[in-house]
Amino acid sequence: MRAIVIHQAGDLRIEEREAPAPAPGEVQIRLVTGGVCGSDLHYYNHGGFGPVRLKQPMILGHEVSGTVLRLGEGVTGLAPGDLVAVSPSRPCGHCRYCREGLRNQCENMRFYGSAMPFPHIQGAFSEILNADADQCVPATGLSAGEAAMAEPLAVALHATRRAGEMLGKRVLVTGCGPIGCLAVLCARQAGAAQIVATDLSDNALEFASKAGADRVVNAARDPDAMNEYAVGKGTFDILFECSGAPQALGTGIAAMRPRGVVLQLGLGGDMTVPMMQITARELDLRGSFRFHEEFEMAVRLMQAGRFDVKPLISHTVALDDAEQAFIIASDRDRAMKTQIAFSG
Amino acid sequence: MRAIVIHQAGDLRIEEREAPAPAPGEVQIRLVTGGVCGSDLHYYNHGGFGPVRLKQPMILGHEVSGTVLRLGEGVTGLAPGDLVAVSPSRPCGHCRYCREGLRNQCENMRFYGSAMPFPHIQGAFSEILNADADQCVPATGLSAGEAAMAEPLAVALHATRRAGEMLGKRVLVTGCGPIGCLAVLCARQAGAAQIVATDLSDNALEFASKAGADRVVNAARDPDAMNEYAVGKGTFDILFECSGAPQALGTGIAAMRPRGVVLQLGLGGDMTVPMMQITARELDLRGSFRFHEEFEMAVRLMQAGRFDVKPLISHTVALDDAEQAFIIASDRDRAMKTQIAFSG
Amino acid sequence: MRAIVIHQAGDLRIEEREAPAPAPGEVQIRLVTGGVCGSDLHYYNHGGFGPVRLKQPMILGHEVSGTVLRLGEGVTGLAPGDLVAVSPSRPCGHCRYCREGLRNQCENMRFYGSAMPFPHIQGAFSEILNADADQCVPATGLSAGEAAMAEPLAVALHATRRAGEMLGKRVLVTGCGPIGCLAVLCARQAGAAQIVATDLSDNALEFASKAGADRVVNAARDPDAMNEYAVGKGTFDILFECSGAPQALGTGIAAMRPRGVVLQLGLGGDMTVPMMQITARELDLRGSFRFHEEFEMAVRLMQAGRFDVKPLISHTVALDDAEQAFIIASDRDRAMKTQIAFSG
Amino acid sequence: MRAIVIHQAGDLRIEEREAPAPAPGEVQIRLVTGGVCGSDLHYYNHGGFGPVRLKQPMILGHEVSGTVLRLGEGVTGLAPGDLVAVSPSRPCGHCRYCREGLRNQCENMRFYGSAMPFPHIQGAFSEILNADADQCVPATGLSAGEAAMAEPLAVALHATRRAGEMLGKRVLVTGCGPIGCLAVLCARQAGAAQIVATDLSDNALEFASKAGADRVVNAARDPDAMNEYAVGKGTFDILFECSGAPQALGTGIAAMRPRGVVLQLGLGGDMTVPMMQITARELDLRGSFRFHEEFEMAVRLMQAGRFDVKPLISHTVALDDAEQAFIIASDRDRAMKTQIAFSG
Repeated sequence: MRAIVIHQAGDLRIEEREAPAPAPGEVQIRLVTGGVCGSDLHYYNHGGFGPVRLKQPMILGHEVSGTVLRLGEGVTGLAPGDLVAVSPSRPCGHCRYCREGLRNQCENMRFYGSAMPFPHIQGAFSEILNADADQCVPATGLSAGEAAMAEPLAVALHATRRAGEMLGKRVLVTGCGPIGCLAVLCARQAGAAQIVATDLSDNALEFASKAGADRVVNAARDPDAMNEYAVGKGTFDILFECSGAPQALGTGIAAMRPRGVVLQLGLGGDMTVPMMQITARELDLRGSFRFHEEFEMAVRLMQAGRFDVKPLISHTVALDDAEQAFIIASDRDRAMKTQIAFSG
Repeated sequence: MRAIVIHQAGDLRIEEREAPAPAPGEVQIRLVTGGVCGSDLHYYNHGGFGPVRLKQPMILGHEVSGTVLRLGEGVTGLAPGDLVAVSPSRPCGHCRYCREGLRNQCENMRFYGSAMPFPHIQGAFSEILNADADQCVPATGLSAGEAAMAEPLAVALHATRRAGEMLGKRVLVTGCGPIGCLAVLCARQAGAAQIVATDLSDNALEFASKAGADRVVNAARDPDAMNEYAVGKGTFDILFECSGAPQALGTGIAAMRPRGVVLQLGLGGDMTVPMMQITARELDLRGSFRFHEEFEMAVRLMQAGRFDVKPLISHTVALDDAEQAFIIASDRDRAMKTQIAFSG
Repeated sequence: MRAIVIHQAGDLRIEEREAPAPAPGEVQIRLVTGGVCGSDLHYYNHGGFGPVRLKQPMILGHEVSGTVLRLGEGVTGLAPGDLVAVSPSRPCGHCRYCREGLRNQCENMRFYGSAMPFPHIQGAFSEILNADADQCVPATGLSAGEAAMAEPLAVALHATRRAGEMLGKRVLVTGCGPIGCLAVLCARQAGAAQIVATDLSDNALEFASKAGADRVVNAARDPDAMNEYAVGKGTFDILFECSGAPQALGTGIAAMRPRGVVLQLGLGGDMTVPMMQITARELDLRGSFRFHEEFEMAVRLMQAGRFDVKPLISHTVALDDAEQAFIIASDRDRAMKTQIAFSG
Repeated sequence: MRAIVIHQAGDLRIEEREAPAPAPGEVQIRLVTGGVCGSDLHYYNHGGFGPVRLKQPMILGHEVSGTVLRLGEGVTGLAPGDLVAVSPSRPCGHCRYCREGLRNQCENMRFYGSAMPFPHIQGAFSEILNADADQCVPATGLSAGEAAMAEPLAVALHATRRAGEMLGKRVLVTGCGPIGCLAVLCARQAGAAQIVATDLSDNALEFASKAGADRVVNAARDPDAMNEYAVGKGTFDILFECSGAPQALGTGIAAMRPRGVVLQLGLGGDMTVPMMQITARELDLRGSFRFHEEFEMAVRLMQAGRFDVKPLISHTVALDDAEQAFIIASDRDRAMKTQIAFSG
């Protein structure tokens, strides 16, 4: 079977690998769809990000869906042919954070396609994938493309839940890549009264509008547009900061009302923060990282028809042209979510 | 009557002023004690801080207590001779934040001794003070010095309440001026299991120990001491950042466990923040600003004997030597809370 | 001008009253629409409820809207002809609960049409109404009927906010009068994944379906239907108990999952509660009473098109036939929200 | 080895049992101390409670400590001779509640000494006990009697954490058995400003005073004493209901201030509740059941000297006289916590 392997920045290969039989408790899956995520792009374009660096070849990918091929010993509740969304999150289940229900903070996490521990944790972009049964969420009724969106949707849902009740709230989203657009979608579904989205790319903002933003602002072309929200004690109750850009965070914070909540999802490094405003307005800046039970929730909400993520899938590329998917996905003026079709 | 008036940086004068009769609803108070706060020192030493600048002479002071002289029309529940702690906070009671119970975020706040609006809001350092009845909290059983500590204690209590339940938690306090030491006291009273306090001054750390810190660390002399708390997924559940120093915040954040809560009380300007750690560990950075019902709570808790703030009052200086109080209070290697004796 | 006055159970009169000029700070309103609420019906049918009893004639009504006639001295921001929703809630603004932002818990509340204090607080069902300016929320773009729904919608919104984040949650609503149906609407808008509603009346359940319930259960005709949700550790995350019937609460609690949240809105008296289930599953039973800032929020959300309450207005009756409105509203097999047209 | 076995109400036997070798991952413990809990007494006096009924002989006991005898394969971090507090809670670690961190709500819980599933889960009152390594919390520095208090202290800590921040709060505790007295202790340590405790037994109230209650009220002898707290909008912020008696809950609720929090720990059956007060004052009634990470927290806080539970251990009885321990513990006018000495 073939897998998509990154060797170093710019060196992406489709390689042949063995497909072992599923171990007890595992499910063997024929991958159908894999979405390209920002972290995949960082490995492809830069060989990593911050202190996270490639040191050996690594299979990429963690947004995947497929159909069940066969079941390892002891697995129940699934049958060959079932479409499943596969969670890339594999917490240990025993450390203090797992026991406290903070499985995304597991001390021994093995998340697909991560260069952080060494040896690296291999990713899921392979034609045949053996996953633990509890990673596999039945996705009946969804397309494989939608099922592969469960992972980024889970990230946005996790942040939305961390934001608390949202009915009637005014929401700002800075940075409208896939996570930002999914945050727009979540805020809309959770009852936000008004959603403003900013980005530097008109293409991104078009998708944000499709996802439900009431107003989009191109901060490059209209740098003063946000000033109207920064008057008095500020406007927004909630900010989803999905850009990782200090400038966006600063502009956003200036527009927050007292006791507003800022969700930081964008993975920047050190950022300069207008701390006086955070203190004086008693803002609440909360990091949000990955997800735990929101993965199953994402599948369930798409199945119930509450979340339509299809408009966000801008490109689907065949496995043979995998590198093309990474090139397209890297172009923010062109793509939103780019997915790879591993099979029919 | 005399008042302590700041004209510009370094120009502090004791001036004679009229003492008008109390208006209906007001209480006329003979001031007994006034504590010197960090913001008073900023006016004295630098003429202001950040965008807040002196533009005209202003009476300083907002940590005050005194005895009732006479009551304006319609005031009940107080009698001449009563010791009262006087809250410097005068919210409008009508704006949306007042209506929501966030009176410290009042859109029309008139907080004693603030240069921010213009004309400035005059402070409370005057021998005779007319205050609204609802600013006056009876402080029977306390010394006037303790009663004048109600204001900074309220600041620390407000932050402690914003931190949520604290029983059994591990707490770090960075910056051990009066607010930091009072945060130590609050954390201790709220059931913290372990309290570590850091500062650059041994004098400050001695007071932190008196307030109940289990361990104090001089970050200047022992810059690596905090590393032991930054291992693995981190150690502290709660951080009270009371220094306003980016270095302290950074060291503190590195030592926080996932989902830890950082209370930012220190008034720094723009600060560089290790945002990746906030995001990845899902920290919660909350600004905390002044107080609302915690002022009454502070008086009540001191009366109940639960908080002993007396050890933090390092110096008491007569009104005649008021400038000396500002000089002493500015010396972190010598003072903790410096108070001025207006009478008695 | 005419007003609707209750003298005792069954004795409802349309009486002539004086219409005084608006005092400073007041707005004089020509009433257009008044909705009949359950408490109005209790006065009409039973002379009160529990310890709350009529002791003198009282104007009924607290769900009202109208157009501005003229403004008392000092009122700005409104103009004659404006449609306003009028909040019946008049907290004192000074007691400890008002200061804490819990204005619905005001110690000196004067809520329209309440027999609880004596002399009673007169209601709003009069052709001309003088209200404080801050009771009047501009309702441009709404019909007067919708504007008069702001009050019951605020009640449901308040309970929904007390329930916390609702995205993806499974929700049960017991009792589908106007408040129950509005709770269905709120849960839907707040992102509930599944909503089940129960009542004893098919008419009520039809309206619950229109409001967005996924499934309705007639507990009279199908008493065992809820058993399927009571299996294992239970099903529902949130219960809005709007019936005040111990039987409904008991059935609902049996179907709750651990840590589920029960909002008690229904005004029953003493109720027998399966406390063992509350304790063992760690349920959270929260009372919800009236509203505070949710009144403005209700108007704003209707204006934004997020809440369509029109399908719940089942009858509109002319003032001349006011008693007919009370008779219709008392018939749960016929009416949902019955409103009285005071003018045009 | 000997074990304490209940056959039916009143039929308690000391029986000889086999002591198997510890399995891999297990620790073999020589029991030193076992505390008698209310549920043990229900089995002894009544053969069970509510629907929970003895159907076969069952070893009692779940509040135990002992010294390590030997370690099963793969166990690290403990050594023979170590004193350990043994948690009776054995969640599965895999069900949805375990994954969410609500391990006390595990769908497959095997809690020591519970007749609820059948076959019953055997208890811990045996001279030799094999426990999973992660049930064993090192208790160095504590007496075995204190270590055996970790379990009931964990119950009280869990409720205290569910109550939220407690600094400066006014707290009522109804029912001063061991759990009620430990709730007093927790509230005190968490910074409560005032603690009132009620019971029908002077003996119980004496212990509540020792634990730190500011005032104790014998509700049998002084049935009107609580009325003074029920005036106006009520007094208490938090109520720990530890009696399971509807009368106590009703009296307590009448004395709660708006938005007060009632923790229901007492295991009553159906209880009549003044629901109108819960609704109108928007009280929050929360069930609290057992504990999860609070067991380790209990040991840690006792080790840190923050909780002194020794004054609550009223009797220690030798294993040979075990039935005597049950008789003493059943006498509320005589005992507080009665423990059985298994060795040493």
